[in-house]
Amino acid sequence: MSEISTLGEFGLIKHLTEKIELKNPQTKYGVGDDCAVLSYNEDKEVLVTTDLLMEGVHFDLTYITLKHLGYKSAMVNLSDIYAMGGMPKQITVSIALSKKFQIEDMEDFYDGLKLACDAHGVDIVGGDTTSSRTGLAISITAIGETEKGKAIYRNGARETDLICVSGDLGAAYMGFQLLEREKEVYYKQIEAAKTDAERMAISQPDFSGREYLLERQMKPEARRDIVIALREAGIQPTSMIDVSDGLSSELLHICKQSHCGCRIYEERIPIDYQTAVMAEEMNMNLTTAAMNGGEDYELLFTVPIADHEKIENLKDVKLIGHITKESLGCALITRDGSEFELKAQGWNPLK
Amino acid sequence: MSEISTLGEFGLIKHLTEKIELKNPQTKYGVGDDCAVLSYNEDKEVLVTTDLLMEGVHFDLTYITLKHLGYKSAMVNLSDIYAMGGMPKQITVSIALSKKFQIEDMEDFYDGLKLACDAHGVDIVGGDTTSSRTGLAISITAIGETEKGKAIYRNGARETDLICVSGDLGAAYMGFQLLEREKEVYYKQIEAAKTDAERMAISQPDFSGREYLLERQMKPEARRDIVIALREAGIQPTSMIDVSDGLSSELLHICKQSHCGCRIYEERIPIDYQTAVMAEEMNMNLTTAAMNGGEDYELLFTVPIADHEKIENLKDVKLIGHITKESLGCALITRDGSEFELKAQGWNPLK
Repeated sequence: MSEISTLGEFGLIKHLTEKIELKNPQTKYGVGDDCAVLSYNEDKEVLVTTDLLMEGVHFDLTYITLKHLGYKSAMVNLSDIYAMGGMPKQITVSIALSKKFQIEDMEDFYDGLKLACDAHGVDIVGGDTTSSRTGLAISITAIGETEKGKAIYRNGARETDLICVSGDLGAAYMGFQLLEREKEVYYKQIEAAKTDAERMAISQPDFSGREYLLERQMKPEARRDIVIALREAGIQPTSMIDVSDGLSSELLHICKQSHCGCRIYEERIPIDYQTAVMAEEMNMNLTTAAMNGGEDYELLFTVPIADHEKIENLKDVKLIGHITKESLGCALITRDGSEFELKAQGWNPLK
Repeated sequence: MSEISTLGEFGLIKHLTEKIELKNPQTKYGVGDDCAVLSYNEDKEVLVTTDLLMEGVHFDLTYITLKHLGYKSAMVNLSDIYAMGGMPKQITVSIALSKKFQIEDMEDFYDGLKLACDAHGVDIVGGDTTSSRTGLAISITAIGETEKGKAIYRNGARETDLICVSGDLGAAYMGFQLLEREKEVYYKQIEAAKTDAERMAISQPDFSGREYLLERQMKPEARRDIVIALREAGIQPTSMIDVSDGLSSELLHICKQSHCGCRIYEERIPIDYQTAVMAEEMNMNLTTAAMNGGEDYELLFTVPIADHEKIENLKDVKLIGHITKESLGCALITRDGSEFELKAQGWNPLK
């Protein structure tokens, strides 16, 4: 392994970025100057989003590899561009590193970043590399475009609109629970082991049959395909958001900003088989996991009721409810017909 | 003081940003959705730059107030936009907070941010607020514009071009040395004090006659005025960079990327009187402080020799040397005529 200080800041940036090839005509100049230089056509709107991820708060390096972390860090930002109905074109990447990291670690991180960017046609155009006195901090800014006037906000939902969600929910959260459980088991075994032989004999957890949950937690996929499918079907959603903090929390954002209420149906919430099995095994409420788990990075959107048939024909999109007038509030209708008021029990990083 | 957890993430962001008024026609939508939405004319290029600032590495809260820190965090990013010859229009602001911070602290930080943004006509359009297990992390992305084809890179300097720098150098570094010295004195007094009365009697350091040094360290000003003056004088620099890591380091960036060498003259390096006095008092080499101190946020640029007269007439810009062919290397000519090869001894955050 190689010490980062042997390269210095500029050397490290150069090492990590020198093989980057720019793909987009909207990118005039990437890494290597005071700014990246971009060029967007007049008929486009430019979308900008940013996220700051802190070790020990947003990720745990005891179970996520740096390559997965690079991939996920990029993906969560690309997801925000798709959530506006846009196409991401560039990202900048800033990282603050503590001494425990080596050049090879950063290569792994960049491999993950590049994998995500290549899959989504995105250029890495700049950033900052510096040191941290404690863990790793990652800040990514994504930039994208959409046709002028076509950005999809959270505030456009109207009464009678249909509420739709892509993919399935709760799996990333159950993946997180699984990893946390296995981490605890592992540490207990380490503690109990008295000899080297005993330590060597500690088995790695067996995740077979749970691969989907781990993938959803460690390698989320931003839904570019859904944005394209909506365009191709001629559907312009009235509102859209990505599911990062949990379905409840995102629905409340849409309803609050659109000044309306909603009803969604428990039986319609899309849940994968592995998610259901894991919730059962862990004795957790499945609907709660799907409603409040978060990190699904699926798209939640509303469409006019006239688009009902078009939505029915869309692959991997499910109609889960409808928008009501504001005075009716926001509620989940359970399988037995009871109404439960939605609450944002999503993850609060400030608590 | 009020606990941040009482507001939660969305509450805190709302509290800090609800009074923000958008100033620029290039800003269509600011804080409050998945992305900010911007609109740039076709005859412009979009500039993007980002910085990640970590407590204990880039700033020390024992002597910088959060208001100053907010101001400085914005300013160092705006400086990168000016360094391309552009005008900043938007910033996004992400902060990760540990538990020691209260709502009022964040209000102070935002007051500083807003002060900087108002002075430079910049909109705060988004960001992220989250928690940190340790200190404060700040990530700012600045976005700006320049006329198409007019962005000033680091790689355009040519043999015989004149090297110019705005303002004066080394003052921010001497301000830093002064603050570090007084911090040490203060801690020694605290340690030595045995009673409350003795602790109460510890005097605050007297900074009179050093105000300029402190201001340069804590409240740097990005040189918008110089970019405007250059445009008005009809000068298009062949290369430009801002002095964040020290004059030597920045000159080497320009020369390396432009494939040329340079000669600069010690006697021409602009230095303020207070900087000189402080260096003398601290027994430090004044030229070294000016060459390698960093954090000046002045603009360093090159112009064709034909612009000599125009440059002479520019207020607050000094001609310090000229560009040579690459084989001659980069050197400082001292007052006695000796040549010293330039070395990037600027601050390396990764060491």
